[in-house]
Amino acid sequence: MGRHDERNMSKDTRERLLAAGLQMLLERGYNGLGIQDLLADTGTPKGSFYHHFASKEAFALQVVDRYMEEVHRGLDHTLADPDRAPLDRVRDFFELSAEKYRSEGNLGCLLGGLGQELSGINEHFRLKIDECLSAIAERFVACFDEARARGDLNPEADSRALANRLLDCWEGAALRSRLWRSPAPLIDMLDFYFGQVASAGR
Amino acid sequence: MGRHDERNMSKDTRERLLAAGLQMLLERGYNGLGIQDLLADTGTPKGSFYHHFASKEAFALQVVDRYMEEVHRGLDHTLADPDRAPLDRVRDFFELSAEKYRSEGNLGCLLGGLGQELSGINEHFRLKIDECLSAIAERFVACFDEARARGDLNPEADSRALANRLLDCWEGAALRSRLWRSPAPLIDMLDFYFGQVASAGR
Repeated sequence: MGRHDERNMSKDTRERLLAAGLQMLLERGYNGLGIQDLLADTGTPKGSFYHHFASKEAFALQVVDRYMEEVHRGLDHTLADPDRAPLDRVRDFFELSAEKYRSEGNLGCLLGGLGQELSGINEHFRLKIDECLSAIAERFVACFDEARARGDLNPEADSRALANRLLDCWEGAALRSRLWRSPAPLIDMLDFYFGQVASAGR
Repeated sequence: MGRHDERNMSKDTRERLLAAGLQMLLERGYNGLGIQDLLADTGTPKGSFYHHFASKEAFALQVVDRYMEEVHRGLDHTLADPDRAPLDRVRDFFELSAEKYRSEGNLGCLLGGLGQELSGINEHFRLKIDECLSAIAERFVACFDEARARGDLNPEADSRALANRLLDCWEGAALRSRLWRSPAPLIDMLDFYFGQVASAGR
């Protein structure tokens, strides 16, 4: 086996661990995730795990990074659509997220899950999850600015505050959706938020 | 020591364990809560814990019951105030909750914390937390009905849906408030929600 194949295999192992870890963290949370189970489920030797990740915490933080890469890809895809009005583009991102949650068994949002579980006692996760939520909200600011300029929003609306509130509403609905194993609370929240916020523009 | 004193002492022990357990669950979550730490912090012998509680799970579920007793007392206190308009009474309850969170170190809501951490894998907690949130939302329905009858809400508003959405918005803001260790996201959400919902009535 050449060096190139080894590198690819090693990269595959890392990706497989991160993908399995994401699903396990969504279901069981951080403390409920056993590295032994992860190794058994993915057929990975222990040494291989610790070759890629210094610790369970380092692993989970990289799962969050991988999750965020997908979030940003979804944001790139939805927020740049020139054929949609700016508020519709923001809503499109959340509709896409609801679809993603559904494909994962309606377990809600990894950021909300880890944020609730760990932020009381682990500063790494508290800062990490806060940073992730802020980064997502920041992506909406330009759309809200554009919507206000078009008259789709109250002219005095603060785009950054609107973006943060929307994300907070979403995270709360994601909790209920996790409890119900249903996307209904997410869609209901989007209808409510965009109905209220957009009606203020008219 | 008479039988009466023994009963009181036993009741005190149970209350002390539940109070310490609440603070520990808020900070560390369920899996992060060590019974050994709880016993050490409260100076309770192990046998005494298991005299009162069959298991860690039974204990945590009773902490939730105790938490809900306090929630319902807060609801009784705020929602029945005859000097306040119905929407103000609902808001009063959340202002009271924000004060309570602050007194506990801005760690957010126990229901959101345990709901996120455990509902992916533990049906007892999934159903319990869902039941608690539904019970809280149900308490607001009469106030929203009254507000609609007074013209403070859109005449077509669905009181139960409004109540559930409000609670979901709140839980999302409680996550951010936990991440920030600040009540600001909670107060901002109340301003947003009541501003939007009430303006639809005018």
